[in-house]
Amino acid sequence: MLDQMSILDQIKIVLSHTTHPGNIGATARAMKVMGLSDLALVNPTKFPCAEATERASKAADLLADAIVYDDIHQALSDCRLIIGASVRTRSLPSRLVTPRELVSVIQEKPNNLPVAILFGTESSGLTNEELHLCHYQVYIPTNPDYSSLNLASAVQLISYEMRLAFSDMKQLPEQRVIANEQIISRKQFDGLIAHFDQVMQSTGYINPEHRKDIDIRMNRLLSKAQVTESENRVLRGFLSSIENTLK
Amino acid sequence: MLDQMSILDQIKIVLSHTTHPGNIGATARAMKVMGLSDLALVNPTKFPCAEATERASKAADLLADAIVYDDIHQALSDCRLIIGASVRTRSLPSRLVTPRELVSVIQEKPNNLPVAILFGTESSGLTNEELHLCHYQVYIPTNPDYSSLNLASAVQLISYEMRLAFSDMKQLPEQRVIANEQIISRKQFDGLIAHFDQVMQSTGYINPEHRKDIDIRMNRLLSKAQVTESENRVLRGFLSSIENTLK
Repeated sequence: MLDQMSILDQIKIVLSHTTHPGNIGATARAMKVMGLSDLALVNPTKFPCAEATERASKAADLLADAIVYDDIHQALSDCRLIIGASVRTRSLPSRLVTPRELVSVIQEKPNNLPVAILFGTESSGLTNEELHLCHYQVYIPTNPDYSSLNLASAVQLISYEMRLAFSDMKQLPEQRVIANEQIISRKQFDGLIAHFDQVMQSTGYINPEHRKDIDIRMNRLLSKAQVTESENRVLRGFLSSIENTLK
Repeated sequence: MLDQMSILDQIKIVLSHTTHPGNIGATARAMKVMGLSDLALVNPTKFPCAEATERASKAADLLADAIVYDDIHQALSDCRLIIGASVRTRSLPSRLVTPRELVSVIQEKPNNLPVAILFGTESSGLTNEELHLCHYQVYIPTNPDYSSLNLASAVQLISYEMRLAFSDMKQLPEQRVIANEQIISRKQFDGLIAHFDQVMQSTGYINPEHRKDIDIRMNRLLSKAQVTESENRVLRGFLSSIENTLK
């Protein structure tokens, strides 16, 4: 099944806490024009909405198919590679790439579909919590004197780069998907983090009353590591061996 | 004088017979975000207009500076290289290029500034008369099943390619170095790996007689993670807490 899908079909656009429904509609249009179709919405302020439908024009089918989540983790749970989109740069855990470099990131790791590209709320972009879910941050080069790119325009530019790179290729040539080497899904990732947390409490390393920022650092570390299925098994096996020894 | 102007300053966006004032405002914003500033309007249906100003956001200065013409020839009179933008391909007098190829066209002929990029009315694009004024036609690759790119989105994509090509600025901003965020030295890395190995033996997860490839996988995982000083302290602290608990 996975082999027969095009890469464009496996790029999910995730809009988190979008304020203006018109931007959701314009995003759907921007995506469809470039051949993307998978839209997820996390806690939109107002959706469905006539304004969204109007701005979507003939891409209203994407709005009808869009899944609305109330938790970002659910929206990302099936995704392996998670990219945060931002025009702002902060000191960040995730590596910064341009949209064109993002093409190479996806090309180099064909095992890591589906990809999620995550866009934050219009006024302030991604939250720190959302940024910590991302393996990479994609940064669209803009005028430093006025970098306020409209949300749907940002989706348009990234979708355009995706189309230029991936429209001809039904699948990436000559690179077989090796299950063991796939990055784990976000759902598996959350399970791994929870397991670490549990064992760290068992050994007394984490005090639930006074957590410091150990969980943030572990999250960031394992996100950077792009943990694969086989590595996940090693870590989970190690954590289980600690639990068994402590019993 | 001309030498000191950037190429971006000498790319004029010309909107002909634009129907929706919102698109004029969104075009101004799309341009300014990419560092373009020269906007000309030929017989807009409604301009100036509050809707245009609203959609322009903080690019309203481009609207204030925009010159409105009632004749396309006047709008183009100072331009040397004239490019028509269209998502439709017709049998045409002008050569067809992608936005990325347009960069080469401009680069190869630095004498031919200013450049005009001409966009027709929303519903039907450039007229034949307008197309005959163009040296090239720029064609934005789109989904053949739905190629209806919004006017301001088309300006956004072309302005983006212009910025990538002609802005002197680095595309990615510098990322600050924070001491805690330095990757650990190889010596520290080897110490970390040895500590993991020791604890994995203590919990019985690694059998020294029959190691499988767990250490190879851990090495690879931690190498991919680019472990920092602060993350190293978290991992070492966790490993020590396991040892202390097992005592």
